[in-house]
Amino acid sequence: MRTKHEVGTRDRVVRATARLMQRQGYTGTGLKDISREAEATLGSVYHFFPGGKVELAVAAIGHGDREFADLLRTVMAREDHPADAMVACARELATGMRDSEWMDGCPVTTTALESARRLPPIRDAAERAFANWHGIVRDKLTAAGFDDDTASDVAHTVVSTFQGAEMTAQITRTTTALDLAGSHLARLVRSYRE
Amino acid sequence: MRTKHEVGTRDRVVRATARLMQRQGYTGTGLKDISREAEATLGSVYHFFPGGKVELAVAAIGHGDREFADLLRTVMAREDHPADAMVACARELATGMRDSEWMDGCPVTTTALESARRLPPIRDAAERAFANWHGIVRDKLTAAGFDDDTASDVAHTVVSTFQGAEMTAQITRTTTALDLAGSHLARLVRSYRE
Repeated sequence: MRTKHEVGTRDRVVRATARLMQRQGYTGTGLKDISREAEATLGSVYHFFPGGKVELAVAAIGHGDREFADLLRTVMAREDHPADAMVACARELATGMRDSEWMDGCPVTTTALESARRLPPIRDAAERAFANWHGIVRDKLTAAGFDDDTASDVAHTVVSTFQGAEMTAQITRTTTALDLAGSHLARLVRSYRE
Repeated sequence: MRTKHEVGTRDRVVRATARLMQRQGYTGTGLKDISREAEATLGSVYHFFPGGKVELAVAAIGHGDREFADLLRTVMAREDHPADAMVACARELATGMRDSEWMDGCPVTTTALESARRLPPIRDAAERAFANWHGIVRDKLTAAGFDDDTASDVAHTVVSTFQGAEMTAQITRTTTALDLAGSHLARLVRSYRE
């Protein structure tokens, strides 16, 4: 069993890794940077992650996966109509981007894109994240009366569009792409069910 | 005036930089890798790019910008209805991804995401690319009878969605996200003009 202190340190290391990798990529992030950012010794970083940087990246992607999944789940539960959930979700993402001054994009994609080809465990973690998000959106659409195939198809495009719009917002430093993604995804959803 | 040989070498260096950065990111790509991949001496890399890696990344993003712009322009000119152009564009992107065995995603986003925050010239180059692509899609929609505001809005979502779907295809190693992006963007376009 882990002590309370150990859970705290491990969690700080994971969050620091996610923050650094989403800002400077996988290759640009060293274990010393992580140790400094997490206020943990290099020894304790290795204690929790004997697999080194790959294991840390997988944990950081898992953290980003859960963060976006929590946001999606909260918004989907709060909004009755899935079209309203699209708008609300885009708004949450836009607020997060603006509050971080366009720094904190998606830790999953920034980490995975540059390393997925060389490091299969990182690709696998990113793929699990996409599948997780897809499932949450699909279930909301199914619950709203979409047939299974349409719900699954539309959920793929919802996840792709939010990913792309978040990336665009980060590069252009405006929330325009996210705001429009929300309203166009709502329009797409309503084109199936008013 | 540049000699024919010089144009050839410079072009090889830019293409090599784009290829390497889209596969392993900005930080993970060294000048020696670029020199080797381009079959050019390190001296000639510095001759053409005295600004070093930042200048190379900006040129690589410009190359990726032109490549995707050419694809968009060709498809938009070939397809009469903008909805058909969405499907055709997704198909071209899917073919490119499959043919490269899920290696060659967008050099603009992979390079920019990890470095945009630290290196403003790279962010600026990526922003110019997004604006260029947006303009091509917007003009196609305007030519098809969309009013200016709607054309501009929809074009933003088209660019975001293709970016996100290409990224998803790269991570999941299937063209599903791109195929669905094409058909849903076509549906969105048709929801304004049949």
